Amino acid sequence: MRYRRLPMSGPASTLLQRYRAVRAATEALAEPLSPEDQTPQSMPDASPVKWHRAHTTWFFETFVLEKALPGETGFDPAYRVLFNSYYNGVGEQFARPDRGLVTRPGIEEVAAYRAHVDERIERLLGDDALGADGLAIVELGLHHEQQHQELLLTDVKHLLARNPLHPVYRGRAEAARTHHSPQTWTAHLAGLREVGHAGKGFHFDNEAPRHPVHIAAFELADRPVTNGEWIEFMEDDGYRRAELWLSDGWADVQEHGWRTPLYWERIDGTWHQFTLAGLLPVDPSEPVTHISAYEADAYATWANARLPTEAEWETAAVSARPDGHFAENGAFHPVPLAAGEEGCVRLFGDVWEWTRSAYSPYPGFRPAAGALGEYNGKFMANQLVLRGGSCATPTGHVRPTYRNFFPAAARWQFSGVRLARDAG
Amino acid sequence: MRYRRLPMSGPASTLLQRYRAVRAATEALAEPLSPEDQTPQSMPDASPVKWHRAHTTWFFETFVLEKALPGETGFDPAYRVLFNSYYNGVGEQFARPDRGLVTRPGIEEVAAYRAHVDERIERLLGDDALGADGLAIVELGLHHEQQHQELLLTDVKHLLARNPLHPVYRGRAEAARTHHSPQTWTAHLAGLREVGHAGKGFHFDNEAPRHPVHIAAFELADRPVTNGEWIEFMEDDGYRRAELWLSDGWADVQEHGWRTPLYWERIDGTWHQFTLAGLLPVDPSEPVTHISAYEADAYATWANARLPTEAEWETAAVSARPDGHFAENGAFHPVPLAAGEEGCVRLFGDVWEWTRSAYSPYPGFRPAAGALGEYNGKFMANQLVLRGGSCATPTGHVRPTYRNFFPAAARWQFSGVRLARDAG
Amino acid sequence: MRYRRLPMSGPASTLLQRYRAVRAATEALAEPLSPEDQTPQSMPDASPVKWHRAHTTWFFETFVLEKALPGETGFDPAYRVLFNSYYNGVGEQFARPDRGLVTRPGIEEVAAYRAHVDERIERLLGDDALGADGLAIVELGLHHEQQHQELLLTDVKHLLARNPLHPVYRGRAEAARTHHSPQTWTAHLAGLREVGHAGKGFHFDNEAPRHPVHIAAFELADRPVTNGEWIEFMEDDGYRRAELWLSDGWADVQEHGWRTPLYWERIDGTWHQFTLAGLLPVDPSEPVTHISAYEADAYATWANARLPTEAEWETAAVSARPDGHFAENGAFHPVPLAAGEEGCVRLFGDVWEWTRSAYSPYPGFRPAAGALGEYNGKFMANQLVLRGGSCATPTGHVRPTYRNFFPAAARWQFSGVRLARDAG
Amino acid sequence: MRYRRLPMSGPASTLLQRYRAVRAATEALAEPLSPEDQTPQSMPDASPVKWHRAHTTWFFETFVLEKALPGETGFDPAYRVLFNSYYNGVGEQFARPDRGLVTRPGIEEVAAYRAHVDERIERLLGDDALGADGLAIVELGLHHEQQHQELLLTDVKHLLARNPLHPVYRGRAEAARTHHSPQTWTAHLAGLREVGHAGKGFHFDNEAPRHPVHIAAFELADRPVTNGEWIEFMEDDGYRRAELWLSDGWADVQEHGWRTPLYWERIDGTWHQFTLAGLLPVDPSEPVTHISAYEADAYATWANARLPTEAEWETAAVSARPDGHFAENGAFHPVPLAAGEEGCVRLFGDVWEWTRSAYSPYPGFRPAAGALGEYNGKFMANQLVLRGGSCATPTGHVRPTYRNFFPAAARWQFSGVRLARDAG
Repeated sequence: MRYRRLPMSGPASTLLQRYRAVRAATEALAEPLSPEDQTPQSMPDASPVKWHRAHTTWFFETFVLEKALPGETGFDPAYRVLFNSYYNGVGEQFARPDRGLVTRPGIEEVAAYRAHVDERIERLLGDDALGADGLAIVELGLHHEQQHQELLLTDVKHLLARNPLHPVYRGRAEAARTHHSPQTWTAHLAGLREVGHAGKGFHFDNEAPRHPVHIAAFELADRPVTNGEWIEFMEDDGYRRAELWLSDGWADVQEHGWRTPLYWERIDGTWHQFTLAGLLPVDPSEPVTHISAYEADAYATWANARLPTEAEWETAAVSARPDGHFAENGAFHPVPLAAGEEGCVRLFGDVWEWTRSAYSPYPGFRPAAGALGEYNGKFMANQLVLRGGSCATPTGHVRPTYRNFFPAAARWQFSGVRLARDAG
Repeated sequence: MRYRRLPMSGPASTLLQRYRAVRAATEALAEPLSPEDQTPQSMPDASPVKWHRAHTTWFFETFVLEKALPGETGFDPAYRVLFNSYYNGVGEQFARPDRGLVTRPGIEEVAAYRAHVDERIERLLGDDALGADGLAIVELGLHHEQQHQELLLTDVKHLLARNPLHPVYRGRAEAARTHHSPQTWTAHLAGLREVGHAGKGFHFDNEAPRHPVHIAAFELADRPVTNGEWIEFMEDDGYRRAELWLSDGWADVQEHGWRTPLYWERIDGTWHQFTLAGLLPVDPSEPVTHISAYEADAYATWANARLPTEAEWETAAVSARPDGHFAENGAFHPVPLAAGEEGCVRLFGDVWEWTRSAYSPYPGFRPAAGALGEYNGKFMANQLVLRGGSCATPTGHVRPTYRNFFPAAARWQFSGVRLARDAG
Repeated sequence: MRYRRLPMSGPASTLLQRYRAVRAATEALAEPLSPEDQTPQSMPDASPVKWHRAHTTWFFETFVLEKALPGETGFDPAYRVLFNSYYNGVGEQFARPDRGLVTRPGIEEVAAYRAHVDERIERLLGDDALGADGLAIVELGLHHEQQHQELLLTDVKHLLARNPLHPVYRGRAEAARTHHSPQTWTAHLAGLREVGHAGKGFHFDNEAPRHPVHIAAFELADRPVTNGEWIEFMEDDGYRRAELWLSDGWADVQEHGWRTPLYWERIDGTWHQFTLAGLLPVDPSEPVTHISAYEADAYATWANARLPTEAEWETAAVSARPDGHFAENGAFHPVPLAAGEEGCVRLFGDVWEWTRSAYSPYPGFRPAAGALGEYNGKFMANQLVLRGGSCATPTGHVRPTYRNFFPAAARWQFSGVRLARDAG
Repeated sequence: MRYRRLPMSGPASTLLQRYRAVRAATEALAEPLSPEDQTPQSMPDASPVKWHRAHTTWFFETFVLEKALPGETGFDPAYRVLFNSYYNGVGEQFARPDRGLVTRPGIEEVAAYRAHVDERIERLLGDDALGADGLAIVELGLHHEQQHQELLLTDVKHLLARNPLHPVYRGRAEAARTHHSPQTWTAHLAGLREVGHAGKGFHFDNEAPRHPVHIAAFELADRPVTNGEWIEFMEDDGYRRAELWLSDGWADVQEHGWRTPLYWERIDGTWHQFTLAGLLPVDPSEPVTHISAYEADAYATWANARLPTEAEWETAAVSARPDGHFAENGAFHPVPLAAGEEGCVRLFGDVWEWTRSAYSPYPGFRPAAGALGEYNGKFMANQLVLRGGSCATPTGHVRPTYRNFFPAAARWQFSGVRLARDAG
């Protein structure tokens, strides 16, 4: 497999080039996976790899081709229901927990479906036959597909992890052990800040409108929490002390028996974790990942700190350098912190950072009209915001204003934690 | 039963007088209920009436008497576990879903327990033998008990509603039909406001610290949504149109078959609702109640509006008059809106009003040290804030800064909805 | 409480006398229980005490009074649904798992209901106003009520056992420790036997018709397995060795964590069990009880034996003496085996004995017409037969042909085990 | 695909020939299925196709090769756990409900596993290197594999049926509509019969020992119930009349909403059923299939009849001709009854026939020693016996004494019903 570096943000790129690049990137991610690997789903929250490949195609077919080529019937009319994820405005959806039971179309038929839609979209783009609305939806569809590239990776990781043989998605060279610096803090002053997306560039509807938020003085950790620090928390009985936990989190600890991050396992006295490169020893210098927001919050309480709000995070991020590691790195795993990294690092990439902010509408938020209005707005309940992207996020996909969101108990994403604390 | 008017806020009242009044009010609420009525629980979220009576007593015994009378053993050492609700700092708790299976102590033994603790607390208060900390905890205990007075009512209503014989907790005269005005709006300007409790009066830790919040211009409805308006929503297929609903809410609609507020039932073509006075016809002029936040949100979307944030609500509430109806009214049900009510009315009393604000810590929030720190802080996940108090809230218990909180799906509280919308 | 010895089988007794005696016995069993004790249910399989008192009354009202007094309306028309257990032929039933939520009627109203029906039945019996069919249903109703007397005891035991305070239903003097004999066997020859009820005396429909069964030569243990023997099984890892268990039983062991009979608990190194006289040390000489058929079967396998079939058991029982202990004993607990007991003892009383026989219809079985046909026949799936009665069965209620039945996983009845093995 | 006719019972066949034939038959059944089709499982009771292929191989490797070739390690040591179905005597088993999540080994690696084991078994058989015990286990393994051939078909049918596209496993020519005769009865006299296997031929342990059973006079229907008759039952509200149903069956009707046999669906007013040849109209002349024992029992009650016991069935079967249709027929679906079929027909093949007999040990039954003793004995609880084989059973696999068994609620097997009734 070659996972190409995507020229997403270069000024010379055209939408057609980007379309080809993003679509090819999805196929490159699926390429190491057998038909068997691409078929089941390991939990209702996760989807089969071949479903991701088909659903992202369905998005273009439904929202672009149906309007642009009204005379044509689709590739297969049954797909309109079968690969609709959650758009009630489009119609019925096939039951989400049963996605892993749909063995046909198989991966070759899915590839044919992709080719069929690609040929038409590329022709429309090449002929400049789409109006501004159509072009905007193609652009949205590419960002949508990038989101599914990340989910494809996290979902197949969750599936492969259930296999007692510890299969390898893609091997990697062992990273050199590093000696990183202790955690330091950067102080931020109180005041009114503008938060949210304002410019003309692409952004999701949930990033707008830009609006003022008053922020109290705070300090933000210069790097994410590491595995080594997490082991200290574990060894200090962090998973057994109720007083550190939110009530719902403590209930989950009891019910699920959480004692480590997801995918950790102790073998002969050494902590290992299942990765997309197989079962590997835990590197203490890596940013910890696959933790729920509850675990992040309990850790922060234990460390006499707290999670940042999303406004605090964004305040820090507007001037940060994008020094973390994204999917193009090819490791699909956080990279260890090294000695030379100084100042506030890794805000972008490596691990999504949990905030304490509920995923709520910004003041004045309005979802788009029609089915595409279901993209983000209807999920604004019972979720927390994560920021910054991860080692499974395509380069160029995230922004300082980008809002990812998951329920506080979710652990199968590449989620991590950066501490914050009140100033003075 | 006589539910006495409580002189909670009069300047002449002493803590001892208030202790007696609040404790007596609990017993007055339980008085119409048989031993059988006071024993079961109808769902894990609800508790038996006699458990409420014992747990509020446990609170004083555990947090006041154990410190003030260190030589004494408790009334019954087993109660320390049996009536601990959720304080891990105190120790083990009896399993919450099994509270309805504990038939002994019976209600007479619970009454003896209350008398035992009352005698000691009243002596300590009379002798002025408690320091400032002890007095503060007694005060906290009284507010705690008032919260449980409301829960006692909502929990026993939920229990009685499961009985096909429609039992009456306490009858009431039928209210005269009223002709209320159409809904109007009050506009509020954008700007930085101070939110949260600041003064010296009693408040819960979650109401502090007072802090600036920037609010965009908005309009707030002058009264809560009524049953009559809700029926319009129902008749316009409000419960069947996915596009109106948050995703989690729509899932609940499907799973639970919601088609009306909780406790509604159609009999011979007329909507009825189960109340603490039995099964009665729905009055279109009453504020609608027993709705989840999901239903409130869907209604607001249908009405081209939205839920207010808690900061918006508080902004409006600081200058509002307390013209709603509280538990002392004795109806334990919202009172119909009448023609004469003008301006912004009923912010306090009648129904708790859902906000769209997640129940999160205010900037700089610190829970108290020790077990009492578990009172509020550990629930700051997966809940929404409600404001203003209800027909089951003791008079004087709520404030403009008071934050009640429940999960978005909760319906058994006296919860209602007041609309908001963006200005301009 | 005085639990009177019932003159059920004496030749001089009339049906009216027996009616009064059986009805009074139910009330005597309920008498030590408070209104609180009589209200909840601890699992869907169990019913509240006051429900048992009302349902047995409903039986007479529905099946006798409705026919005999057609002009009268019932005591309360709502009871026809509320206290119908499972008779679809009568109409709707209130949801079984919610029986513990019906706090009204309370126990005084239930007592009034009983008095109302008793007055009418006794008048009809006194006036000899019931035909043969009516008298047969009264007789059936009395046996039905005796079955519920046993359930009342096992259900309230299950409820009280959930209370961490270990409440006492009725105290008892501690039994002297006994020195019983080792287990011996009685051999039975092969041959064709007649099984099932034939005579004119009362029997349930499931005991007929009498029919020939061929039985191979077998041996039956002379007494039930004791607690002392059961502890040997436990100490030999009986609950941890999959090879001893039926597959469904092993699944239950895993799922529920069974390691002892129900109600056992180890305190300071000594086995205790919750009884209706409170928490008491386990007596090794008592017949073991509160075991599922799966445990009985695993024990038998461990002991190189097996469970008897019901035909084998009945073959042995026709000539056995009724030397066990029934409810009139007042202990509501199996009595320890004593040194003097020789030959095949305790087939009747003390503990119900699991057989390996599925509860199936006898050849030629026909349920009665109408709703009373639902009494037994519709449960002939997924249950095993138990034989012989227990310490909670009213004296005179059981017969050699009596077939009790419960699912193999049930543990809350006074169920025990007597071994059998193939001869030669 | 060519599903070869297997020369299982011909006198000239050697075990080696039969080994090759049975193993090839499994592969032939899997051949029309893609890697995607062979991977998921649609419910915990069903297994993936590639799991069946691997598990049957594991059986030979574990029970034959481990003993015969002690020096060799297995094909992959991890398979010992991964493909162990339920043999605790062999060791741990991979969690049954997660079999569909094991994507690796894929189907090519499974094919290699089969080839590896086949090469060794065939060599051992060719060299006559196995003793009598080893040969007996090979024979058992072949019958075991034939059982899994049937499960492979029923499991993949259940999976494909979940796909809204109605995939075809293998097409077939549409059968001509037939005009079959009305149902007639054959009478059997009362008496003592010998039941169970006695001769030297292969049989499972649960078919022995042969033993006498007394049977009352009865009549057995000459053919299975047809779809046409089943539709009459449906149209007479058979699925809505509680009085026809066993109590547990009625609970399943309510919970699962059963209104037809499994896989039926009404399209434009016509009943269709999903088959391995796709979605086809229901033929009224076909034996009804995919019904639970509860449905069979309710139908029988409706028809004034009952299910036969297994002893009755076996009595009739000893002299019956094998005129039904087995897997070699290639339709994998029951064949319609035709006009010419007279006397007692179709006892073997087409559909398994539910009996009312619980799956219990025969008198004197002893499971084999060691892990193979788990084959049958430990399932003797909560199951009913089915007799006669089906359209998915390999020819020659069943016998008059053959006992198949499933829980009463199971519907995904090719199960049907033949009526019985008491004579005179």
